[in-house]
Amino acid sequence: MAGPMVIAVDAMGGDAAPDAVVRGALQASARTNARILLVGDEKRLHRCLTSERHSPAIDVLHAPETVDMGDIGPLALRKKRLSSLYVAMDQLQRGTADAVVSAGNSAAIVATASHHLGLIPGLKRPALGVLLPSFGPDILLADAGAHSESGSIHLAQTVFLAISFLKHSCGRPHPSIGILNIGHEPTKGPRAIQGAMKLLAESFTPALRYVEPHTLFHGTVDGVVCDGFVGNALVKLLEGVSDAARQCLGTLGGDKLEPSAHRKAPPPEQWLHRLASKELGAAPLLGVRKTVLIAHGRSQAREIANAILDAVGYVRQELYPRMEKDGELLEHLAAVRSHYTRWMLAGLKGPWRLSTKKPESDKGGQP
Amino acid sequence: MAGPMVIAVDAMGGDAAPDAVVRGALQASARTNARILLVGDEKRLHRCLTSERHSPAIDVLHAPETVDMGDIGPLALRKKRLSSLYVAMDQLQRGTADAVVSAGNSAAIVATASHHLGLIPGLKRPALGVLLPSFGPDILLADAGAHSESGSIHLAQTVFLAISFLKHSCGRPHPSIGILNIGHEPTKGPRAIQGAMKLLAESFTPALRYVEPHTLFHGTVDGVVCDGFVGNALVKLLEGVSDAARQCLGTLGGDKLEPSAHRKAPPPEQWLHRLASKELGAAPLLGVRKTVLIAHGRSQAREIANAILDAVGYVRQELYPRMEKDGELLEHLAAVRSHYTRWMLAGLKGPWRLSTKKPESDKGGQP
Repeated sequence: MAGPMVIAVDAMGGDAAPDAVVRGALQASARTNARILLVGDEKRLHRCLTSERHSPAIDVLHAPETVDMGDIGPLALRKKRLSSLYVAMDQLQRGTADAVVSAGNSAAIVATASHHLGLIPGLKRPALGVLLPSFGPDILLADAGAHSESGSIHLAQTVFLAISFLKHSCGRPHPSIGILNIGHEPTKGPRAIQGAMKLLAESFTPALRYVEPHTLFHGTVDGVVCDGFVGNALVKLLEGVSDAARQCLGTLGGDKLEPSAHRKAPPPEQWLHRLASKELGAAPLLGVRKTVLIAHGRSQAREIANAILDAVGYVRQELYPRMEKDGELLEHLAAVRSHYTRWMLAGLKGPWRLSTKKPESDKGGQP
Repeated sequence: MAGPMVIAVDAMGGDAAPDAVVRGALQASARTNARILLVGDEKRLHRCLTSERHSPAIDVLHAPETVDMGDIGPLALRKKRLSSLYVAMDQLQRGTADAVVSAGNSAAIVATASHHLGLIPGLKRPALGVLLPSFGPDILLADAGAHSESGSIHLAQTVFLAISFLKHSCGRPHPSIGILNIGHEPTKGPRAIQGAMKLLAESFTPALRYVEPHTLFHGTVDGVVCDGFVGNALVKLLEGVSDAARQCLGTLGGDKLEPSAHRKAPPPEQWLHRLASKELGAAPLLGVRKTVLIAHGRSQAREIANAILDAVGYVRQELYPRMEKDGELLEHLAAVRSHYTRWMLAGLKGPWRLSTKKPESDKGGQP
């Protein structure tokens, strides 16, 4: 890339915007040589910037509108072309920025990113990935909230996004993935999960297994795939536990581990310390063509700074271009999609009731 | 009731059955004067019983078949009339037992209980209730896994089951209920939740609010309603946290609080100790006409004993008859059902797109 890296930040997104976002950008700019482009209401941003010590690596781009947390994705997309989110995404799409970071309305970010940047070929939907501390190395949870309802094809494709992310970002060449379910028996769980398992059985040889939530962080898999509502709920519950644990261990004088310690596979009793000391970072939106990170709506300056630095890291490791060129990923996405289409065309009511062996004689018996 | 109370226990249900169930029954019988009826394979049960010190308060009823964890509800119902679960439920239905406790396949228990015992008039489906420790008094989470997919009417009716349970079992005359969602804005979450909110707005005056998972245990509400898959996933995640916290606090020499302490509203930093020391008890199946408790599939003897004692408690407080006679509950269930039916009859595709003011002119705009 010519010139320095540019991270476009939706300065109006999030509960504490724009003040916390500006302070976060200032904190980040002290720790990276990437340029930061704050997109939002020019006047308010300059006011925030002058009240802080200014950094020459921070630019401001005016966008008069804001997407509220209550706006829903497609509506925000159509109506708010002058919003900070839209303008930031536009910069990324034109190539004048290398990544977008936003702590705004995630439905709007997902819709705007999909629309502006496009998806990896064959993919139906992007998914949010969150790295969670486990008894061993971090595990990826996806979808952590890009969408609040998922069908079998979305779950099945997310498995391959997770594999590709773990390969290219975490250096795990053969990651193991589980599907989150509330039992390990094949009949458990909603139809979307059973359908995803059947789709995967057709297009993917290594058998996937179900991972139950109480073993989620035991480190038995590298990644766990679930519906975005469930994933977001679990991540938020862990955030609540983390807050409580911080207070609890604080009163007990528990040692706070450094974030780097989480690669050393500490024993189970250290997990809670790590959960308490670690902040669940900004979530990369997997499956769009360029680097987009969604930070927590409640992000304060430190979280925004970390999200910007995470974005710098993903751009530097070329995660998004590598995922887009990942032949296995493209092949699997296409295979899942074609199986799914074939099932739909077979005229049956639901993919979970189908068998590819004799689709014509399958009268919808119990799976 | 004439004669002593009888708790029928599905002795073949659960991962450690029948041994752990028999030992649990023996432990419970030492702490209650209720009779315990172990239902299952006579030979195996007598073998377990003779290897332990026998209790005269324990009877055995033969049932040659077992419902496996892999069997799915309706199938198990039709085929396994000689299963321990079916026979136990039959005893409850005939009045020769006062409650059923099972650690078996929960889908089969829900289906068998609904079929044998019937539901509270107007109710579409029962829901599992689990009491979770919070920063304040315990909070009820429902549905904790009776069903793995829920529509708006199920969520809306579960709100009233939760209210009735909290009134009659926990002595909270005006319980506050929240709907679990991944944001507090009205547009957040899946359509079933938005539909439930609209149904509730029509049939219930106090406005309900969304509760986000990270504040689930902050004690801001008495009860939280969610889909059974999500509820079960959250409860299981908390069980995993509880296990980890037990090890973690053990190594730190953290004081284990007595279960009774959780009524004293200890400060947030004590919550984790309580989560670690407290066992999430067996879940009452709310909405069926007689007392049914579902214990964890992984239950060991102690958990089975506690489930039996919980059942004794619910029978003693006449929870189920009181819920069935709860006029407000019946009225709300009927109101939700009639609103829902009216919406369906209006010929529109989904309850979340409807407005009762002008149903004929609503062309499906954004809610």
